[in-house]
Amino acid sequence: MRHQVCIIGGGPSGLLLSLLLRRAGIDSVVLERRSREHVLSRIRAGVLEQGLCDMLRAAGVGARMDREGFVHDGTIIAAHGTTVHIDFKKLTGKSVMIYGQTEVTHDLYDELDRIGAPVLHGTEDVTIHGADTDAPYVTFTHDGRSQRVDCDQIAGCDGFHGVSRRSIPASVRREFEHVYPFGWLGILAHTPPVAPELVYSGHERGFALCSMRNANLSRHYLQVPLTDRPEDWSDASFWAELRRRLPPHLAETLVEGPSIEKSIAPLRSFISEPMSWGRIHLAGDAAHIVPPTGAKGLNLAASDVHYLSRALIAHFAGNGQPLRDYSVTALARVWKASRFSWSMTRMLHEFPAEGEFLARMQAAELDYLAHSTAAQTALAENYVGLPY
Amino acid sequence: MRHQVCIIGGGPSGLLLSLLLRRAGIDSVVLERRSREHVLSRIRAGVLEQGLCDMLRAAGVGARMDREGFVHDGTIIAAHGTTVHIDFKKLTGKSVMIYGQTEVTHDLYDELDRIGAPVLHGTEDVTIHGADTDAPYVTFTHDGRSQRVDCDQIAGCDGFHGVSRRSIPASVRREFEHVYPFGWLGILAHTPPVAPELVYSGHERGFALCSMRNANLSRHYLQVPLTDRPEDWSDASFWAELRRRLPPHLAETLVEGPSIEKSIAPLRSFISEPMSWGRIHLAGDAAHIVPPTGAKGLNLAASDVHYLSRALIAHFAGNGQPLRDYSVTALARVWKASRFSWSMTRMLHEFPAEGEFLARMQAAELDYLAHSTAAQTALAENYVGLPY
Repeated sequence: MRHQVCIIGGGPSGLLLSLLLRRAGIDSVVLERRSREHVLSRIRAGVLEQGLCDMLRAAGVGARMDREGFVHDGTIIAAHGTTVHIDFKKLTGKSVMIYGQTEVTHDLYDELDRIGAPVLHGTEDVTIHGADTDAPYVTFTHDGRSQRVDCDQIAGCDGFHGVSRRSIPASVRREFEHVYPFGWLGILAHTPPVAPELVYSGHERGFALCSMRNANLSRHYLQVPLTDRPEDWSDASFWAELRRRLPPHLAETLVEGPSIEKSIAPLRSFISEPMSWGRIHLAGDAAHIVPPTGAKGLNLAASDVHYLSRALIAHFAGNGQPLRDYSVTALARVWKASRFSWSMTRMLHEFPAEGEFLARMQAAELDYLAHSTAAQTALAENYVGLPY
Repeated sequence: MRHQVCIIGGGPSGLLLSLLLRRAGIDSVVLERRSREHVLSRIRAGVLEQGLCDMLRAAGVGARMDREGFVHDGTIIAAHGTTVHIDFKKLTGKSVMIYGQTEVTHDLYDELDRIGAPVLHGTEDVTIHGADTDAPYVTFTHDGRSQRVDCDQIAGCDGFHGVSRRSIPASVRREFEHVYPFGWLGILAHTPPVAPELVYSGHERGFALCSMRNANLSRHYLQVPLTDRPEDWSDASFWAELRRRLPPHLAETLVEGPSIEKSIAPLRSFISEPMSWGRIHLAGDAAHIVPPTGAKGLNLAASDVHYLSRALIAHFAGNGQPLRDYSVTALARVWKASRFSWSMTRMLHEFPAEGEFLARMQAAELDYLAHSTAAQTALAENYVGLPY
C-alpha cells in the first residue's frame, strides 16, 4: 500500500497527527502494535494545556471535552507550612482542562473511524527502511501477513520503547537522561477530589499530588522509594500516608475509598536529539520523557504534533523549510518544558541524599513564590503552556 | 566601660549599626580586631541594592556615594549563545548602585569620627560573657591592657571567622552549608569596563563576570578549579581566558591591562540558625555566607542591620518584641537571598561532574529567561533586592 505519511504509533500523538493531516487533505496510515482496547485501558495524564484544547477543537474533536471536561483556573502548591494558590487565569489569562488522555484518545478513534482514516492495530515487527533515501518504506506483519507501506514521510509517534527513535543511527543521536531517585505510587479511586483544583504538596516525608478525573474519580500520587512495589502498599496505608503529607485543612477533606488501580512509575527526564533524520520525524515520548510533575508529557507530544503537522502540510504544499526546521523548532519548546518539569520536581520532592541545605532552598523557594507575583506568573505561564 | 550596645566587628555592618543607633540616641562601642588600614585595604563587593543606598542616605552618609557611584538600571546575562538584557528599572522600578564596599566603609569611618562614636581597632582576645544573663559583658585586650565593656545587648558583626557565632552554644545552633566545586579568580585592573553594565557570562569553559568600580577600574572574575592558585594565572592567560568566555561582541570591547590585585575565593553557601541567642544578635557574614553570584553578601548584611537597628531602637524604647523576633525576621530574607544566590550560581557555572543534562537545563533556563517577562522580573526583583 502507499500513503503520503506513515505514522508509527496509535496513541494520542499519532492519532491527532493523522486527523490534522487528513483535514488538510494529506493521506496517512497509523500502525499500532497494541489492540485498541489495550490503548484505551492505559491510565495516563489528564491535564490539557489550552493550546492542546484549541488544537482538538480546531480538529473537530473538542465537543465531548468541552462538555465533560473541567476547566481549572489555578492550582494549589503547598509545602513546608506554606500554601500558595497559583491563579492561572488572573496571571496569564489562560486555564487548563481536566480531561483524561484516555478520553482524548477515545474521541480521536471515533472521529478517525467516522471519516474512514486507516488505523491498523496489532501490527508487529514494524521496520523502517530507506529513511535517508527518496523512497522510504515501512514493513510489518498484520493479521499474519507481511505488509509494506511506501510513503513520502514517516512520523515516529511510538513512544519511548518504539522502533522509530532506534531507526535513527546511534552515531547521529545524542541522548540526555536524568533519573530521579524515587518513583510515584499512583492510585485511582471513586472518591471526590480533596479540592476543586490539583494540590501539589511537598512534605518532609515526600511529595504528594491530589489530582482528579471527575467529581467522583480521584487520582492521587505519593513519592516512594524506587525499591517499593505496589503490593507493599495497602489502600489503608496509602490513604494514611497521603493524609500525613497534605496541609491539615486539606487532609480534613480527604475522602478514602477502595483503589481501582495502583501502580508505581519511576521518574525520569530524557531527550533525544535530533528529532528528525532523513524522512523520519519523532513526536512525543519517542523523543522525550518528562517527569509527571507539571503535567507536561501529553502536552509536549501535542506541541510536537502541532509543529510536525504544519511542517508536513507545508512540505506537501511545496515548502520544505518548516519540515527541515522541525527538529530545531520542536526541541526549543521540549527543552523549556523539560526544564520546567525538572524544576517543579526539584522544588517539591525530597532528596535525602542531597542534605538539608537543599531542603531549605526548597522551603525558601516556596516562601518566595508565596510572596512574588513574578514568580507565580513564571510558574503559571509554564504550567498552562508556553506559546507554540 | 559601659555602653548600651557592644558591637563586635568594624566592617560595614558594625559601623552602619553603630551609626544608626547613634542617630537614635543609643550609645555603642565598636571593637575591631584589625587596623583601620587593613579593613580599608580589603577588596570586596561593589553592587549596592537600593534599600542599602536609602539606608546610607538616611544615616547621612550617602553624599559621596551619590556623587561618585554609578547607578545601573540593568545587567547583561549571556550564556550558550543567548544574551539577555535584564532591565531592572523597567521591570521593577528600581536600580542598583556601583560603589565599592571599601568606599562605604570609608564614609562610615569618616562620619563616626566626626560625631565621636568610639571604634576601637586592634582589639584582641574578644570574649563574650553572660550573654544569656541580664548582665552581659565583653572582655578584650587593647593597647596591651585588659578591658571590659558592660552592656545591655551585643551585636555580632565580626564575620564568618569571628567569635560571636561561636559564642552561641553549639547545642543551640543549626548550621547549613553547601560548598561549590570551584572558586572565583578575581583581578582588579585600571581598564575601562567591557560594557556600561555588569556582564554575567555562562560558558562551556566556565563562568565569567565583568564588573567595575569606576570608568577606569575593572573587576573581573573567572570560574576556576579549587586546585588553581593565583600564581598559576599570568595576566595574559587571565585576559585570554576571559575573552574566550565572553560573547563575541563583548570580547571585542575588552581592554587588557596589568592586574593590581589577583586572588582566588572559594564559593560557599552557609547559614547558621538562630541569629539571636540571649543578648547576642548576629548580622552579616557572622551568620551567613552567600556565593558572590548575584552580589548579595554586603546587601544581606545591610538588611540584617536594618532589622537589628530597628529592633534595638524599639527595645531601648521599651518594646522588646522586634528584638525577640529579630532572628526569625532576618532569616526569612536571608534564606530567600541565599536561594537566589544559589540559583544564579547553578544557572551560570559549569558543573562537569553533574553531566550534560544539567548543562542543557541551564541553556533552557537562559532561553526561557530571554523570552519571558515574568522570569526576567523574578530575576530583577531579587537582584535589586526583595523588600525589607
